[in-house]
Amino acid sequence: MEDLGQSLDHMRHTAPLVHNITNYVAMNVMANVMLAAGASPAMLHAREEVEEFAALAQAITINIGTPSPAWAEAMEMAAKTANAHKTPWVFDPVAVGATAYRRELGPRLLALSPSVIRGNASEILALAGVGTAGKGADATDSVDAAQNAARDLAHQSGGIVAVTGPVDFVTDGDRTALIANGHEMMPRITALGCSLNGIIAAFLVGQDPFDATVAALAYYGLAGEQASQKAEGPASFQTAFIDALYQLDPAALTQGARVTV
Amino acid sequence: MEDLGQSLDHMRHTAPLVHNITNYVAMNVMANVMLAAGASPAMLHAREEVEEFAALAQAITINIGTPSPAWAEAMEMAAKTANAHKTPWVFDPVAVGATAYRRELGPRLLALSPSVIRGNASEILALAGVGTAGKGADATDSVDAAQNAARDLAHQSGGIVAVTGPVDFVTDGDRTALIANGHEMMPRITALGCSLNGIIAAFLVGQDPFDATVAALAYYGLAGEQASQKAEGPASFQTAFIDALYQLDPAALTQGARVTV
Amino acid sequence: MEDLGQSLDHMRHTAPLVHNITNYVAMNVMANVMLAAGASPAMLHAREEVEEFAALAQAITINIGTPSPAWAEAMEMAAKTANAHKTPWVFDPVAVGATAYRRELGPRLLALSPSVIRGNASEILALAGVGTAGKGADATDSVDAAQNAARDLAHQSGGIVAVTGPVDFVTDGDRTALIANGHEMMPRITALGCSLNGIIAAFLVGQDPFDATVAALAYYGLAGEQASQKAEGPASFQTAFIDALYQLDPAALTQGARVTV
Repeated sequence: MEDLGQSLDHMRHTAPLVHNITNYVAMNVMANVMLAAGASPAMLHAREEVEEFAALAQAITINIGTPSPAWAEAMEMAAKTANAHKTPWVFDPVAVGATAYRRELGPRLLALSPSVIRGNASEILALAGVGTAGKGADATDSVDAAQNAARDLAHQSGGIVAVTGPVDFVTDGDRTALIANGHEMMPRITALGCSLNGIIAAFLVGQDPFDATVAALAYYGLAGEQASQKAEGPASFQTAFIDALYQLDPAALTQGARVTV
Repeated sequence: MEDLGQSLDHMRHTAPLVHNITNYVAMNVMANVMLAAGASPAMLHAREEVEEFAALAQAITINIGTPSPAWAEAMEMAAKTANAHKTPWVFDPVAVGATAYRRELGPRLLALSPSVIRGNASEILALAGVGTAGKGADATDSVDAAQNAARDLAHQSGGIVAVTGPVDFVTDGDRTALIANGHEMMPRITALGCSLNGIIAAFLVGQDPFDATVAALAYYGLAGEQASQKAEGPASFQTAFIDALYQLDPAALTQGARVTV
Repeated sequence: MEDLGQSLDHMRHTAPLVHNITNYVAMNVMANVMLAAGASPAMLHAREEVEEFAALAQAITINIGTPSPAWAEAMEMAAKTANAHKTPWVFDPVAVGATAYRRELGPRLLALSPSVIRGNASEILALAGVGTAGKGADATDSVDAAQNAARDLAHQSGGIVAVTGPVDFVTDGDRTALIANGHEMMPRITALGCSLNGIIAAFLVGQDPFDATVAALAYYGLAGEQASQKAEGPASFQTAFIDALYQLDPAALTQGARVTV
């Protein structure tokens, strides 16, 4: 496994242009999270331009949090463009078990071979076809319970699967890693999971996908730990968290990461 | 009237899943406000899934701040689903007097018997058919001037009407309450009124609608008062406000509420 | 040139209703920026109501950050309404060089004679037909390199052009001004440029367009300088920046502005 700090350093020097098709709730905070980390986010979704822009981007994220037919079509166009250009793309199957519409849309995007799938345990279980509906976008299953589903999905997609929760689990179907960084306040702030997709995508550019995903998760979780020292509630936590993404230097990441491969 | 702190405690133990069809400006802050308070918000609007999800939700909020025909149709579908499942739903007639489009959409939703209507004085007057256009989403009428309109709307809808402003007014057409909690900085932060809908909806689950609405308003206003002690302007106010929603405990609400029934 | 502090004072006393058709990323922060400054923002975009509301507004902003065909049509409707009512309107050609769709949409809006065009150097060059695609919404050209393009656009549109960057450049085609206020952290926060459109629009109401634009930029940049004294990263910068927009008084603006005409 690469040195995690070097991976952060690489991402910042690349400052990759990441094209995000994400939900309305996440757009602003996701862009701020990515700018703070050192990436260059762009949000756009119109079918009239999505293929042209996806072809310019260095990585792409697709998130079905607030889907509609026109956006779903744009998501498929972007994913196909990513594949045609060998551009890495991250898929977030938000609440994929919650409605028939999502249970149909999720597998359609899964079939387009995402480089990384990131979800909570309930979403990974539902996408693998073995889960329950969950409670909206919140997980009702444990990360441990989703490990086998994650391995299956990784084999099926040919990519990485990251199950995020109190301890994150990352697998490419064979290799696995556990990332213990993070803080219990993080699920109390909306769209921090969605925003993480953009960080993973930025790390993917020019780096090994498994190592890059692990580094992104450790970086994100460690920033959460640092934020917790200043926070008096979820809003001051969010402020301190984004500041920490900006401040965290590679050496601190190498030292603070709690990763078990 | 129930003890207000007990009402907050009940909401937090229920941690209700609330389905919100709200405007683009409010989505992120509304979700954060609801998570801080202890509820479980979900935002989605597609006609392809809105009925299925609304049937799962424990409460629903509908807000016409940034309407369009497809969203308006989804709003009606969600409200009808709420009624079919006896799920409480909150209606926020944002700027309902401002355009012909809203003057037509507002009464269509009003006809679907919202459990609670929450608006500023100008919106309540306009929805009752006796108001002026207001100034965008900002009130140009006093809460006092809207009391009769609120009573009329409550009789018409069969639900609760909450007129929010410097002193909030709540009525079911017969009973009335005044809630004096709050702070003058609150209208300087966008979408705090919209976000309040989600708090009211969360309190409604399993509680008397009139008491729950009063408790939600007192809790919200008291958090504003606490935030004002730390704020140096509207943005630090918002941070302190969301933190206060998280920190405020039931005993503090019982003690700090300024409610006249 | 008018006293800049008086210009701020005039805007606050007018508290103008500004109708914004902006992108999804910017909506919330733009509304908060405008409320903190003392303006009255409204966000709405449906073709069913956009003309009626635009006719009520005292100024309008149009931003193509997340365009789609229905929104683009609404933008044209709003701009035509602005012209019919002699209402000032601000055009932000976000990433106009990035895709064919934007390269077609940008000139269509430019042809509707915006009172002020505000963009980064890459956007102004692209809109003038002499630029490159840029990197998403981020500038890859210097403000200096865009001065001639800005003058050409000003002659073509009959309005003001503001190129924002480390030192802002404003021209009506003949007169020019440089505004040195600002802080290097500002591009690290998403949509602060978009939000500035709303501040310019608010200053335009009842004031000379060239002077109003310069005053708005100096006010915005000076608030950024004040914010930098409290910020530990981009998120605490944003909080301090919005607070500073609220706190900054006219005398401080007159004193702190660094404008060269």
